[in-house]
Amino acid sequence: MFFDTSSANGKQAVTVLGLGNMGSALAAALLDRDHEVTVWNRTPGKAQPLVDRGARLAATPQEAAASNQLIIACVLDYDALFGVLDPFAASLAGKTLVNLTSGSPEQGHEAAAWAEKHGVDYLDGGIMTTPPGVGTPEVMFLYSGSPAVFATHRPTLEALGDPIHLGEDPGLASLYDSALLGLMWATFNGWLHGTAVVGAEKIEAKAYTEVALRWLKTVSVFMDTYAAQIDAGEYPGDDATVDVQIATIDHLLHAAEARGVDNALPELLKASMLRAKAQGHGQDSYASVIEALRKPGGAS
Amino acid sequence: MFFDTSSANGKQAVTVLGLGNMGSALAAALLDRDHEVTVWNRTPGKAQPLVDRGARLAATPQEAAASNQLIIACVLDYDALFGVLDPFAASLAGKTLVNLTSGSPEQGHEAAAWAEKHGVDYLDGGIMTTPPGVGTPEVMFLYSGSPAVFATHRPTLEALGDPIHLGEDPGLASLYDSALLGLMWATFNGWLHGTAVVGAEKIEAKAYTEVALRWLKTVSVFMDTYAAQIDAGEYPGDDATVDVQIATIDHLLHAAEARGVDNALPELLKASMLRAKAQGHGQDSYASVIEALRKPGGAS
Ligand SMILES: NC(=O)c1ccc[n+]([C@@H]2O[C@H](COP(=O)([O-])OP(=O)(O)OC[C@H]3O[C@@H](n4cnc5c(N)ncnc54)[C@H](OP(=O)(O)O)[C@@H]3O)[C@@H](O)[C@H]2O)c1
Ligand SMILES: NC(=O)c1ccc[n+]([C@@H]2O[C@H](COP(=O)([O-])OP(=O)(O)OC[C@H]3O[C@@H](n4cnc5c(N)ncnc54)[C@H](OP(=O)(O)O)[C@@H]3O)[C@@H](O)[C@H]2O)c1
Repeated sequence: MFFDTSSANGKQAVTVLGLGNMGSALAAALLDRDHEVTVWNRTPGKAQPLVDRGARLAATPQEAAASNQLIIACVLDYDALFGVLDPFAASLAGKTLVNLTSGSPEQGHEAAAWAEKHGVDYLDGGIMTTPPGVGTPEVMFLYSGSPAVFATHRPTLEALGDPIHLGEDPGLASLYDSALLGLMWATFNGWLHGTAVVGAEKIEAKAYTEVALRWLKTVSVFMDTYAAQIDAGEYPGDDATVDVQIATIDHLLHAAEARGVDNALPELLKASMLRAKAQGHGQDSYASVIEALRKPGGAS
Repeated sequence: MFFDTSSANGKQAVTVLGLGNMGSALAAALLDRDHEVTVWNRTPGKAQPLVDRGARLAATPQEAAASNQLIIACVLDYDALFGVLDPFAASLAGKTLVNLTSGSPEQGHEAAAWAEKHGVDYLDGGIMTTPPGVGTPEVMFLYSGSPAVFATHRPTLEALGDPIHLGEDPGLASLYDSALLGLMWATFNGWLHGTAVVGAEKIEAKAYTEVALRWLKTVSVFMDTYAAQIDAGEYPGDDATVDVQIATIDHLLHAAEARGVDNALPELLKASMLRAKAQGHGQDSYASVIEALRKPGGAS
């Protein structure tokens, strides 16, 4: 039998639904901080390492959800999530659901509407790390939805990483998550392209990456400067202009071509610079390239 | 009249050829560190702020070069550089030329051969900052060429930024420079794409960028892990797999499409992931995407 409990140590008791790579890391981080944790997973065998550490394994998701006021869910996608929760949605009134399953902003809105219909407090979340980073204060967990619900559960959410509340719109966590992953993939591909180029000269990825990671810190300083320019809608080219970048990217195209590395990415980057130049931004900073990414007549 | 001098304060006297945005910043950083500086620029008026601070303006590049043993050159491109130096190349024997003009690795090799022919010690360099960053120890100045020449002039080069010697091959500074700029442009475009996506929801670039810059630190940790995988030629997907990334990128594509943001970049990124998957890397880490960037039958 399970009851709605707070632990004797004053830490909030938590239910975790979904014990894949990520759900298991979430439950483990809560155990690390001495939370009582009730878990459920479709494939129960994955719970064993957590049970060995003191987690309680529920036989059904309904039983797991009934055990605690706070339910953290992390399954593959929203279809899986509602496949799990819908059969006993009526019994969830008064509980809090923190959904860390990845999805789109639209899915975040749908889930929030679903929760409201069933009298459930809801936060949508995005996990900005891989499982090994869970539980460290450096990593960001993004949340959106009711500020009051966030404030109530913040002490518990701190066990997972640094909790950041983005706003009341429940779609914001997914929107940021998607945008930030786009930044990650673009950064990865730019880095892998360069790693392949220098690798053709037998330079090890480790050696190149050490320099690349220092360089990313400098690039971060540029981004900080350019963010202010974007908000102001003016892109003074007093540090380096789009024209100068266009002249320079050909060196990369030639070096990569000569070394058998696919140039689709730098070709696309050059095309975006040329579009910005055609729009009149040749003497502006790189921040002006954002104008070339907004479709004329696109949705507002 | 100019003479080859060392300053009374024991600091090396330096000639700077080219006083555009960057050359002016280099000369200013040397003046900041109490070096005697002789300057020349095609358009002499640009020298005035430096002359006001104590720099000596030479009437011709030959006169400027004759003044000091160490010559730092930073003009638009290699054509401009040799247009300046060729007329009096024979008089340069025994001097050291540090060339901070941007170019290709091949141009670095040509310049080194030119220098050897004329009895000039040569370092090729890449400046990993914009002018406002020059003179701060955080920024990297990349050099390639003779380690002995680098060691001799390192104390002076430290006035410009942190000097990093990449190796004897004079093409290395330009090769790294090109690769690192490719990383910068890719990172910029990924960031601008996300900034445009969240901007459609009236989120300010400053607010988004604050989160994005924290996220880049986490991404840097992933890159460090993945660099070791690339060197080992094995890409264990124990944190996050290519398959998971492919599933997730559609959220970004839909969110951007709905907000009128050009999706050419994420489409290209997804295509590279799908190529890696087709090559058998679906369950591997993102580092395996490097295999999809190396052209089959490309140059070695
Ligand atoms: N891994 C990361 O680095 C990372 C980072 C940020 C966000 N995320 C997000 O976290 C979520 C989980 O990722 P993960 O890495 O843990 O994936 P995973 O290891 O593949 O685990 C998937 C989880 O979903 C469950 N599941 C799948 N289909 C289900 C269904 N129809 N009904 C009930 N349960 C179902 C699985 O149960 P079984 O064990 O029974 O299969 C398992 O618990 C995803 O939305 C992912 O995008 C992951
Ligand atoms: N700005 C940056 O952020 C940055 C960063 C890293 C590397 N760099 C590299 O630094 C170099 C200079 O860039 P910059 O920003 O200083 O550019 P810039 O402001 O446009 O200055 C160009 C310089 O080259 C000179 N020049 C051009 N053509 C010439 C010719 N035919 N003969 C003699 N001199 C000539 C110009 O002389 P005039 O004054 O007479 O026109 C000026 O001194 C470039 O290779 C650039 O790629 C710049």
